[in-house]
Amino acid sequence: MIGYGTRLAGLVAERGPLCVGIDPHPSVLGQWGLPVEARGLETCARTMVDALADLVPVMKPQSAFFEMHGSAGIAVLERVLADLRAAGALSLLDVKRGDIGSTMHAYAAAYLADGAPLAADAITISPYLGFGSLAPALDLAAQTGRGVYVLALTSNPEGSQVQHARAASGRLVAEEIVAAAAAANAGQTHGHVGLVVGATIGRTGVRLDQVHGSLLAPGIGAQGGGASGLAEVFGDALDYVLPAASREVMRAGPDPVRLRGQAERILGQMRSMLPVR
Amino acid sequence: MIGYGTRLAGLVAERGPLCVGIDPHPSVLGQWGLPVEARGLETCARTMVDALADLVPVMKPQSAFFEMHGSAGIAVLERVLADLRAAGALSLLDVKRGDIGSTMHAYAAAYLADGAPLAADAITISPYLGFGSLAPALDLAAQTGRGVYVLALTSNPEGSQVQHARAASGRLVAEEIVAAAAAANAGQTHGHVGLVVGATIGRTGVRLDQVHGSLLAPGIGAQGGGASGLAEVFGDALDYVLPAASREVMRAGPDPVRLRGQAERILGQMRSMLPVR
Repeated sequence: MIGYGTRLAGLVAERGPLCVGIDPHPSVLGQWGLPVEARGLETCARTMVDALADLVPVMKPQSAFFEMHGSAGIAVLERVLADLRAAGALSLLDVKRGDIGSTMHAYAAAYLADGAPLAADAITISPYLGFGSLAPALDLAAQTGRGVYVLALTSNPEGSQVQHARAASGRLVAEEIVAAAAAANAGQTHGHVGLVVGATIGRTGVRLDQVHGSLLAPGIGAQGGGASGLAEVFGDALDYVLPAASREVMRAGPDPVRLRGQAERILGQMRSMLPVR
Repeated sequence: MIGYGTRLAGLVAERGPLCVGIDPHPSVLGQWGLPVEARGLETCARTMVDALADLVPVMKPQSAFFEMHGSAGIAVLERVLADLRAAGALSLLDVKRGDIGSTMHAYAAAYLADGAPLAADAITISPYLGFGSLAPALDLAAQTGRGVYVLALTSNPEGSQVQHARAASGRLVAEEIVAAAAAANAGQTHGHVGLVVGATIGRTGVRLDQVHGSLLAPGIGAQGGGASGLAEVFGDALDYVLPAASREVMRAGPDPVRLRGQAERILGQMRSMLPVR
């Protein structure tokens, strides 16, 4: 079985480094002339997949915008994940789950088990309960050829309260997460444990080149990240960066031709900014 | 409008201090002789509600065990939340969501907005992205008479990596969360911002009496918490403690009479251990 990191690296080499978010926010549905209900959600999300899933390596549905619509929204999410599988893009489901024990096992089973209705190629997870509490997700991802992205260093101003706190080891909390991800990926070139690292956090001194896993970097375009920012944040790990753009793409919709044009433009920028691995 | 904290305090005064978890883990479904699929999930969860929602003040469905079953599981969760509303117990939906900006707004809208398919009386939220990132949930909860429980200090051994790290203020991360919750509840006797605090964490020095919000304490029974442990952890805040028990109750099922007997027994223990507010 080929692991997530390797599958991702192959598709990025082929298509370029870009993850396009599927964030069907009510305001986007409005802009697209769609009703703010499950059928509008479905048209929006599946239009994104139809327009882009053969172009970019990864698409990232944001679960919150589906959960808003209850079980009808989650049924749409199931279909979006199936569409992505069929169209050949990897699915990175942004759920930021985190719990302990049997509950963490259940989250892993919900999103990373073969045959689960909401199985994705990778999910985001959140380590407030400690990196070790996430082990059921890391383990199941390794077994099923899937991946996880652990929240590490984010660009929102409130994040430093927790992420820049100093752990008992003397390292920052974010450094603890980075080191634990590196340990989990040990021996792999493209490991199954990725990190979420804001593209606009500036220079932090955190060494990301040790991770050997995908570094999801939201903050391109709409959030103000750019080429020089990426180099400052990621240093020698630039070839592991998976930039994420969502609103910057979606605002070109609903016309599939314009969506595709916008994604191609950003993909071109990213190709010029990031080394090909 | 009466806020969540006040509504909860009223029901606890009437019924006693106990939150019963609805954790339809596959192994519980097995023990109850139910199929591990959405209809087994539904029988299990709704049996819990039928047996207990007129006895205890709060019931806490664990979202992960519903998400495992995809949209069919979420449809069951919608019905469980509606059952709880109809039966007069408060619903505390354990989802541990946490995100930023418009995504956090969407999570708030999903679980704390009037009329949302998955609206609960309260939810759990997770502050890895900083307490301030959770503001959309706190604000909407205040507006709609609902509540939030922010993860603060948990009893799992991995939790201290993040929760005991020292923030820039010189306080522990967990103390930052406690202080921020206290500030959000300022001026209220029973605020809308609760905390999740493990019942088995021992003495930490963190002052919980300043919070004036509900303190959800998992770890009764199955996780090993007891009366002396509660006093050690909560000190002068004992009258804000909402002990949570799940497996210890569910293992008495599926017979509703035995479920009710078990919950009454634990409720009696809790009444004797905790001051009546």
